[in-house]
Amino acid sequence: MANLWDQPATTALRADGLRVADVDTSSRPGFTGDKRQGKAALTERGQVLSKLQEKLFAHGRTGGDRSVLLVLQGMDTSGKGGIVRHVIGSVDPQGVDHASFGVPTEQEKQHDFLWRIRKRLPAHGQLGVFDRSHYEDVLVARVHDLVPRAEWEQRYGQINKFEREVAESGTIIVKVAMFISLEEQKRRLRERLQRPDKYWKFSPADITERDYWPEYQKAYQAILDRTNTEYAPWYVLPADHKWYSRLAVTELLIDALTSLRLDWPPADFDVAEQMRLLERS
Amino acid sequence: MANLWDQPATTALRADGLRVADVDTSSRPGFTGDKRQGKAALTERGQVLSKLQEKLFAHGRTGGDRSVLLVLQGMDTSGKGGIVRHVIGSVDPQGVDHASFGVPTEQEKQHDFLWRIRKRLPAHGQLGVFDRSHYEDVLVARVHDLVPRAEWEQRYGQINKFEREVAESGTIIVKVAMFISLEEQKRRLRERLQRPDKYWKFSPADITERDYWPEYQKAYQAILDRTNTEYAPWYVLPADHKWYSRLAVTELLIDALTSLRLDWPPADFDVAEQMRLLERS
Repeated sequence: MANLWDQPATTALRADGLRVADVDTSSRPGFTGDKRQGKAALTERGQVLSKLQEKLFAHGRTGGDRSVLLVLQGMDTSGKGGIVRHVIGSVDPQGVDHASFGVPTEQEKQHDFLWRIRKRLPAHGQLGVFDRSHYEDVLVARVHDLVPRAEWEQRYGQINKFEREVAESGTIIVKVAMFISLEEQKRRLRERLQRPDKYWKFSPADITERDYWPEYQKAYQAILDRTNTEYAPWYVLPADHKWYSRLAVTELLIDALTSLRLDWPPADFDVAEQMRLLERS
Repeated sequence: MANLWDQPATTALRADGLRVADVDTSSRPGFTGDKRQGKAALTERGQVLSKLQEKLFAHGRTGGDRSVLLVLQGMDTSGKGGIVRHVIGSVDPQGVDHASFGVPTEQEKQHDFLWRIRKRLPAHGQLGVFDRSHYEDVLVARVHDLVPRAEWEQRYGQINKFEREVAESGTIIVKVAMFISLEEQKRRLRERLQRPDKYWKFSPADITERDYWPEYQKAYQAILDRTNTEYAPWYVLPADHKWYSRLAVTELLIDALTSLRLDWPPADFDVAEQMRLLERS
């Protein structure tokens, strides 16, 4: 297939200096194709991702210490679940460690906000996926004053320190912030209210949260300004088009895995001798 | 598609009274189609499985307490990994909890053999998958005398008690024992030795374990004789044909999920009122 990107997704979506208020949520940065081409590319690139992930898994099984962590953040209905289903769903479940972070449990509240996060870091060879993450502790916690300002203020530094440690331990961190328009969110919530097979995805809080849109934008801006680091970069993903956001995350993961330059692990046994033993067995 | 089963997989593979030594590993119990039809059926039925799993997940999200646990046992190369990739891979990763049990760690050895198993039981709404399981503690442990006979002897009863408890808590347990012929295993190991992209899956122990084939058969027979219960039945899966084993496990899971008779959870909010609030927001 022809290359339909005029610049790599990693470049087109890089958050450096970006203003959240300026994001065109219906844009498709870097991609020159249309929806049909985008969907075809997703299928094709999903297979590339799957092969790369298998190499990562193979390395983990043979002593390798690398892993990849995808952090997904975004407002309700921005499509995080769809990324998991359609992007992560293209790779072998054996190599995926998926963690979803909701309202902290009573036990979790008895610990530092990073406690539950650390416990779910991907093991060697795994592709970890955080559906929401420690960033909720500077998003919903900040917007709704769940903790005093002095507390959430210091979390940005704590997050950077934590992520540096994770990156230095061998994990490539890919952070994706998904943005949809207020109007697109209304369309998606409307669909959930129109289809009985989607009621379970709806919560009345999804509507009341819409009133806090500007505060969330501000909180996201603070995240991009203060936690967009070399070792754990943010990518800003316009997400009105589901097909585009899925394709773009696939590309970000392909880039992360490719950067590991993994090949199939060599045999740690004498192949010819084992073959002889096998034939005699 | 025409029904290509002359009896349901649940009936055709049921372990009741079965002798392991009599299993024709190249057979395809219940299925009347050929390989091409089997592969087509897998694609089609994978979608059915995916939809059923989504309902289970939806229930878990809305207070439901049911879950499904697939226990996969089988000799090396019998295709457990392929089941995970090609059957479990067809459902949403958000709703899958995959656990692989290898040689116990030092910490795990400091506990009862069921300790590490209990920790990985699927949460409400999840499809849990055990790639190997507590049955290793009456397989490899018995064949290689890792614990005294008196100890593994009592494990059968402990397993039954444990599984009854799990089943009573709302989890449907589907246990699958995969059998290939000694000759088919040789072919598969040969392939791993011929392809550098498969070296990582090979271990010299895979060959030495072949000498213990009769002891493993005996240990599997004991499992079928002593842990094949109404609340946690065993299915015996002839696994020389990968396409058949994947299709058959898909059918077993579809049956388990169907038996839950789940429908989409009803709205626990006033739909019309929420729609009004949404349009005004």
